[in-house]
Amino acid sequence: MMKKTSVQKREYASEHHNWDMTMRASSDLLTIGELSKGVSYRFSAFTGSMLLSISALESFLNSFASFFEKGDSFSWEEYERKSIEDKLEFCFQRYSLEIKKGERPFQTVKKAISWRNSLIHYKPIYVDPVVIASDYDIKKLPQRSISNKKSKPYENLVDRKFAKQFNNDIIMIIQGLIKVSGINPRAQCSYKVLDQSF
Amino acid sequence: MMKKTSVQKREYASEHHNWDMTMRASSDLLTIGELSKGVSYRFSAFTGSMLLSISALESFLNSFASFFEKGDSFSWEEYERKSIEDKLEFCFQRYSLEIKKGERPFQTVKKAISWRNSLIHYKPIYVDPVVIASDYDIKKLPQRSISNKKSKPYENLVDRKFAKQFNNDIIMIIQGLIKVSGINPRAQCSYKVLDQSF
Repeated sequence: MMKKTSVQKREYASEHHNWDMTMRASSDLLTIGELSKGVSYRFSAFTGSMLLSISALESFLNSFASFFEKGDSFSWEEYERKSIEDKLEFCFQRYSLEIKKGERPFQTVKKAISWRNSLIHYKPIYVDPVVIASDYDIKKLPQRSISNKKSKPYENLVDRKFAKQFNNDIIMIIQGLIKVSGINPRAQCSYKVLDQSF
Repeated sequence: MMKKTSVQKREYASEHHNWDMTMRASSDLLTIGELSKGVSYRFSAFTGSMLLSISALESFLNSFASFFEKGDSFSWEEYERKSIEDKLEFCFQRYSLEIKKGERPFQTVKKAISWRNSLIHYKPIYVDPVVIASDYDIKKLPQRSISNKKSKPYENLVDRKFAKQFNNDIIMIIQGLIKVSGINPRAQCSYKVLDQSF
């Protein structure tokens, strides 16, 4: 006869967040870029780092607000539809944090979002054939975008300075929100043994 | 008296694309990930590579279609609104390329887009407290997403195999489209001297 397996009762719960993993990936790529000597590797690592820092911010803002109590002052459905900047502003206002849009770190977030969109939805830019004098400044020629939403060439902004600024300013924002709110969303699970008899 | 500066007439034209730079960044990060020994660096570099490969595809598809003649069979405004997958299908159809959605490389693109969206718009997932027997498979517990659009944890897919598959399959698609169409969008500018007299 087989031995009867002992089965316990347990209470299980879990929550999954990954903004911190994405932020760490951004920091890793920043370090890789800083340590790389080749121009191409530096560009690639900084680009990856910049892209991941802004992804981490959006992910954090979603995880963060998932702890807000639904009610008169908060609707997830409305929050979800907001832009990253508006989500950030909403969270700052909720904890009466000062918002200075023209200064870092807010300014950095605005720049990072516009840069991110240029990278992931790039539309080509043309200067149509035009007769100019040889001493004319070609930067002043009118550029034609194929789209109504004109992209800026994202690569102009990729360097150590901005990669560091994106990464550091976003970490500072996240740390500030965690500190003032006590909400620190991290992936975790809990097991509570309810029945010890076996 | 100052010497009179000689000014020539020139015809100038330029076009700007950067999908190839983004694709190279994806390939660089793939190599960095393959060469890294640390688990964290590998994860970070592969994540960056995967994210950049799909960005490069969207950017290429925009640059590519900017060469299509506007007319009965093509409207940029309609094309621009399409999803990446639909843009790709449109381009394949235009050159009578075979589309097998259930196979690579189409299958890879679908997977890459869904993975990309999980990363950049991540919404947390919860398993609410529940009493279970200790031998219960927790993977079967119902997961609650804060959002109607449920995210999958992107990190489960990050490894060498998928980073390589995303990168290689997207390069293959791009090379195929360039070959069949003769359209190879690269950043360039031209200067034609029109007046040699000075």
